Amino acid sequence: MKLYEQFAEELSALIRSGQLRAGERLPSVREARARRGVSASTVFMAYQLLERDGLVHARPQSGFYVSAQISAGTAAPASTAPRAEASEVAISELVFEVLRAARSDGIAPLGSAFPGPELFPLPQLAKATFAGLRGQDPQTIVDNLSPGNPRLREQIAMRYRLDGVQVQADEIVITNGALEALNAALQVLTRPGDTVVIESPAFYAALQAIERLKLKALEVHTDPVAGIDLDALREALSRHRVAACWLMPGFQNPLGSLMPEANKRALVALLAEHAVPLIEDDVYAELFFDRQRPRPAKASDSAGGVLHCGSFSKSLAPGYRLGWIAAGRYSQQVQRLTLMTTMSAALPAQMAVLNYLETGAYDRHLRRLRTALRARMEAALATIEASFPQGTHVSRPRGGYFLWLALPPGGDAMALHRVALRERIGIAPGQIFSPDHRFSHCIRINCGHSGSIVLPALQRLGALTHALLREST
Amino acid sequence: MKLYEQFAEELSALIRSGQLRAGERLPSVREARARRGVSASTVFMAYQLLERDGLVHARPQSGFYVSAQISAGTAAPASTAPRAEASEVAISELVFEVLRAARSDGIAPLGSAFPGPELFPLPQLAKATFAGLRGQDPQTIVDNLSPGNPRLREQIAMRYRLDGVQVQADEIVITNGALEALNAALQVLTRPGDTVVIESPAFYAALQAIERLKLKALEVHTDPVAGIDLDALREALSRHRVAACWLMPGFQNPLGSLMPEANKRALVALLAEHAVPLIEDDVYAELFFDRQRPRPAKASDSAGGVLHCGSFSKSLAPGYRLGWIAAGRYSQQVQRLTLMTTMSAALPAQMAVLNYLETGAYDRHLRRLRTALRARMEAALATIEASFPQGTHVSRPRGGYFLWLALPPGGDAMALHRVALRERIGIAPGQIFSPDHRFSHCIRINCGHSGSIVLPALQRLGALTHALLREST
Repeated sequence: MKLYEQFAEELSALIRSGQLRAGERLPSVREARARRGVSASTVFMAYQLLERDGLVHARPQSGFYVSAQISAGTAAPASTAPRAEASEVAISELVFEVLRAARSDGIAPLGSAFPGPELFPLPQLAKATFAGLRGQDPQTIVDNLSPGNPRLREQIAMRYRLDGVQVQADEIVITNGALEALNAALQVLTRPGDTVVIESPAFYAALQAIERLKLKALEVHTDPVAGIDLDALREALSRHRVAACWLMPGFQNPLGSLMPEANKRALVALLAEHAVPLIEDDVYAELFFDRQRPRPAKASDSAGGVLHCGSFSKSLAPGYRLGWIAAGRYSQQVQRLTLMTTMSAALPAQMAVLNYLETGAYDRHLRRLRTALRARMEAALATIEASFPQGTHVSRPRGGYFLWLALPPGGDAMALHRVALRERIGIAPGQIFSPDHRFSHCIRINCGHSGSIVLPALQRLGALTHALLREST
Repeated sequence: MKLYEQFAEELSALIRSGQLRAGERLPSVREARARRGVSASTVFMAYQLLERDGLVHARPQSGFYVSAQISAGTAAPASTAPRAEASEVAISELVFEVLRAARSDGIAPLGSAFPGPELFPLPQLAKATFAGLRGQDPQTIVDNLSPGNPRLREQIAMRYRLDGVQVQADEIVITNGALEALNAALQVLTRPGDTVVIESPAFYAALQAIERLKLKALEVHTDPVAGIDLDALREALSRHRVAACWLMPGFQNPLGSLMPEANKRALVALLAEHAVPLIEDDVYAELFFDRQRPRPAKASDSAGGVLHCGSFSKSLAPGYRLGWIAAGRYSQQVQRLTLMTTMSAALPAQMAVLNYLETGAYDRHLRRLRTALRARMEAALATIEASFPQGTHVSRPRGGYFLWLALPPGGDAMALHRVALRERIGIAPGQIFSPDHRFSHCIRINCGHSGSIVLPALQRLGALTHALLREST
């Protein structure tokens, strides 16, 4: 064990045993160096390790603080270990019940899938739509049929290449949101009865698609920090005939986990070895908080077996329903399926986003958006720490706008969902993120809306959780 | 036999035997009345009967003229009688080949599915999009998720009710074009292996959907004038277990046939009796040439078993991908399916059409559009009569922009398609309109584009057909 690991372990033990308590500031790097006689970098690396594990968090210009009852590393406790066998899925009813509740008027949207609409440049997009449509030669309408507007596909391909991902425009199909892309990919890759690997917990839309297409879901344990467990995946692939994987290596929904790049490369290699295609759902790609956009698994795909799905819905234009898929060697099949089912993404949405991208405004907007989302998440985390009972665990994602909370023993997410709804607060109960309604003690919180909505709602949720736990004992 | 029927029969015999020849003018009503000693109404009714049968046609302010080699009543000769058994479908490859050809640059779009884009108010729609998006409260984006914008659904419901069709807004789901509506309906109503009744010939997208969902197609003979043969349908229903019918009672694609209202009522009653739901594809509803919009089969549906699919793509906004379905008792199921697969139609398209409808401009636009399409069809018919060989039959629809031609014996539509493409003319060969590539002697012609494109192309097609027939003898 390295020196910094040893130091981190000591601190970790102090935190877990309650001797270092929530909200306490860790010694500054300078203090710790002086007190322990170790180098500054040892201290710093130890603190980073603790941060990675969700035990402490940094506050800009202030230092590292203990995160109360927080342990991203254990947000998915052992009791929720996935079943080892592939199973049929019947989750849709429950998902619809939850989504319907979340859409009702006047419900605080902590159960919603979209960040606050005020974060998006909607007036500028309206102008971009007009500018794009006005200049349109009527004869070119067919250019926008699937696979979509050639200039828009070129813009998207260029963004891949700037990140060092080799994607050509003719591999890309523009879709009605990433949801169409994901569903089309799954449909192209599978036949009824096939087995599909998903994360545990998984995005409910994947579960719904698997249910709808009469497939079987094979859940693989997924770490709240580092994403899918590659050993567990290797084991699953050796034991099952798998038709496809549907995974979110970047800012997984609901965990917020981000696979390290080395893991992504290993994932692609492992799947290539088993000739299993990967549907890479990467709709939160642009919402990173660190310095650089994490490269997708697609970056190391040389065999065309990764179908990378992206979207402008979470990063630019909610409601415009504009997504895409870089479908590798399945590109033509996906294109044909979309031609047969929706024919194309809508012309105004394509023109709007194309026009907006071509003005260069997108990256400026993204910088503002990331800053705003990060601030909102930090405020939400502080409020959760202050409001929820001891023993609550929460994830600490490095991008996106979802938090994953594991309630203390006795906490029931559906019960919390119901009492919260009565107080006009929506949440996403953990039950909708697995085929068999596990994660019954977990909730997903959308912290991407304005603090004036989210923070009071979180305080109230904390109080409701306290009350529920009292009742259950 | 009534007097006017007798008179019509005599004239019919003269035309069929060639004694009255193509382009000749029938005696005026006044002349005929004087010569035959019958009443003006007898003459007029006889001429109308001949017109219905496609033997003559009216030219405004001029009179009735013999249509050369034209007989809508026999556009689908006996050799193409549908198989009596349900069959699996493998048509997609051929359809894609044909559609790809039709989309290529510089190809005269007589094989295309859309009328000329210059017929649509695209600049006004661009303005309507901007106006609709500009006024949008960001918080209401969720209002546009499936089932779609409430005001837009109310506008659509109002248009139904003005036609005397009882449809409420909450039955309607806005979709990404009618194609999504049709596919969703079929998916909701069937499971793999089920049998679906279609027309013969049928719209190729229905065939593709049936193939994709692993269903079986049961073709029922369809008359080029009066639509599906109800006796044949009754027989089919008594012999097969049918999961759904996918039909186009109004301006059927490719035939252009329009079921008389009494037939539509009988159709709905017959299907209700067998508890078979009807997917009514009615995307050409607004493109009627007669005085009134034909009422859909949905008008007599009291059991909620008719899923009526409409679209703005053919009548207002091509490329905007905005359609809808009034799905009767299947409304919730369709809504859920669309939520899971595309989530909603795009916001800008919904706002554009809503804004355009609310200004009242739609009906003014429709009147201009119908007049233009009718004129284009008449010009195309005249050119076909003048250019195609003796023995060619052509439909004479009362709406839409498709003509269905049956070539004389020896005419092969795929061969014509190939030689025409070399001369940069697209057509839709009859083979793509049935599961087993029948109708090999028929072609569908889109006459909805500008005469400067369509008429020279038709002349050339006529010449190519002459040449092909010479080669084949």
